[in-house]
Amino acid sequence: MMAFLTPLKRIPTPKGEVRHGIRVDDAGFVGFGEAYISEIFSEETKGWKRHRLMTMNLIVLKGTVSFSIYNENTQECEKFLISAEKEQLYSRLTVPPGLWMAFRGEGNENSLVLNIASHPHDPNEAENRGIDDFGKFLP
Amino acid sequence: MMAFLTPLKRIPTPKGEVRHGIRVDDAGFVGFGEAYISEIFSEETKGWKRHRLMTMNLIVLKGTVSFSIYNENTQECEKFLISAEKEQLYSRLTVPPGLWMAFRGEGNENSLVLNIASHPHDPNEAENRGIDDFGKFLP
Repeated sequence: MMAFLTPLKRIPTPKGEVRHGIRVDDAGFVGFGEAYISEIFSEETKGWKRHRLMTMNLIVLKGTVSFSIYNENTQECEKFLISAEKEQLYSRLTVPPGLWMAFRGEGNENSLVLNIASHPHDPNEAENRGIDDFGKFLP
Repeated sequence: MMAFLTPLKRIPTPKGEVRHGIRVDDAGFVGFGEAYISEIFSEETKGWKRHRLMTMNLIVLKGTVSFSIYNENTQECEKFLISAEKEQLYSRLTVPPGLWMAFRGEGNENSLVLNIASHPHDPNEAENRGIDDFGKFLP
């Protein structure tokens, strides 16, 4: 299975927007285990990480983030750019288990990424590799 | 049932923090229906709203927000201040159904509030009142 983007609505009101995230009946939702937030500083890259069980649903809350999703079996890489700062780039990225991910903070300030994860955090469920291990696929 | 705060951890790393949100086994989690984000502009107040079914789990992602939770049956009001900008004020606010809520954007910039809601958005499940209807309990 591949990663995929779902554009999300932002509904303006005079006191501030309502921004969609994910509903239980949305494409890509496979269960709820944990919601947590990852900050990424400008021009820094976190990765590579691969989950054995967890489906990630990633929403950029602040700033702009580029993501690389790498399938080690097929050696295919997909890249995605998501931003909270530009309405046309406000999307949810669904990443099924079994794929490597790295992500980079773009722009001048820190960025925040919400993960609505299908499983709670468990270090035994994830593998890590060095940032340069799949260097040509970095975001 | 009353609303309650749960302090949340923030784990620093050289590339940016990991901030806790909510896990399936946490106090206050009663099911997942939808995750959405409410923006509130500085010095604006949204409210009052009361949910018939939804338990809200509220996490401030950016800025500082004050919340008033009003129980119309007992005429008791609880107030809470949550901030993403001060680590000691980074908490999750659990609001069970049946309570009125209003919230106000503090500080000079817009604030963002994540709701991990037990039920998906449904206008038939919520009631609204004018901001001044419980004016003395406003945040």
